[in-house]
Amino acid sequence: MRGKFITIEGGEGAGKSTQIALLRQVLEEDGHRVTVTREPGGDSVSEGIRALLFSKEMSPRAELLLFLGARAQNVEEVIRPALARGEIVLCDRFIDSSIAYQGVARGLGRDVVAELNRFAISNVFPELTILLDIDPEIGLSRQKVITRMEMESFEFHALVQNGFLAEASREPERFCVINADRDPDMVHNEIVDRVRKLLAS
Amino acid sequence: MRGKFITIEGGEGAGKSTQIALLRQVLEEDGHRVTVTREPGGDSVSEGIRALLFSKEMSPRAELLLFLGARAQNVEEVIRPALARGEIVLCDRFIDSSIAYQGVARGLGRDVVAELNRFAISNVFPELTILLDIDPEIGLSRQKVITRMEMESFEFHALVQNGFLAEASREPERFCVINADRDPDMVHNEIVDRVRKLLAS
Repeated sequence: MRGKFITIEGGEGAGKSTQIALLRQVLEEDGHRVTVTREPGGDSVSEGIRALLFSKEMSPRAELLLFLGARAQNVEEVIRPALARGEIVLCDRFIDSSIAYQGVARGLGRDVVAELNRFAISNVFPELTILLDIDPEIGLSRQKVITRMEMESFEFHALVQNGFLAEASREPERFCVINADRDPDMVHNEIVDRVRKLLAS
Repeated sequence: MRGKFITIEGGEGAGKSTQIALLRQVLEEDGHRVTVTREPGGDSVSEGIRALLFSKEMSPRAELLLFLGARAQNVEEVIRPALARGEIVLCDRFIDSSIAYQGVARGLGRDVVAELNRFAISNVFPELTILLDIDPEIGLSRQKVITRMEMESFEFHALVQNGFLAEASREPERFCVINADRDPDMVHNEIVDRVRKLLAS
């Protein structure tokens, strides 16, 4: 793997897509080749899975397994090949979202989800994870599109936030936690600093 | 669980759907309430997964995880409720198909698939599994509809058959292996004998 794999995580309304677009632009201006992908989605199979996940009611186990299926396909079809070409891959949600949403908030258990993640990604771990941390109440108030996940209770989203923060404490070297309840330019500058440090290392 | 859970397994062209239809009729004539389901499918989410699985090329891990997602949903939405109502559930393919196809023939490994199966089914194990055993060459020659799985090589289907037979040796009490390369009525009679024995036990 010659490239760099960076994931961007966070609850609803944390500003992930905005920040990914801004980061991509800077990295390309710096002369890097960048692949942006998202979960679930980013390839032809996973966009179909995404449509199912966000439209149908389903059991928590089925939901997790579909997210993992989309992840496995995205890793093989998009992420691994881009890393092999030496590119920077920015992925909107990855293993930590499964832990926070399905492991913690849906109650399937943190460890079982972490183990299933390992199967799905087959050793393609991110080197850096930017966690955009936001109070769920603020994050949800920012959202316009309402998907099945966003319609969950406030308590659900508070559990998601706790789940993300617990992962960040568990792996402080991989995680960079950024307070996302601020001006997007400030958030952007912090992200760029951290990513340039990774690229220089 | 007051009902009885019976799965029907076997390679392509083994005659599973024919035998399930015949068995259902006899059981209903005997006065039982019967739910028939199939994998992947049998509920609104899984039929969507089925359409993806049989139309798109995908990685072996993604394929397995989608089959497992469909299984988890089918268990919660169809199988577990029917068993709780005291019905006989006949399921066309279940855990052993994942082991034979993805674990053995696709090479993901028998044990890892067995473990992922356990997560997906959440303790809803079949009490009886009818394995319709057929020489892959004969089975494939019977098939009219060609799906992505059926287009795999002869060697692939030979591995699938070996995978099924290995599971049957591992759990001889759960499995009933029936030579499916015979007159469908003979096969049917053997199945009925075995199922009536289970129901009387």
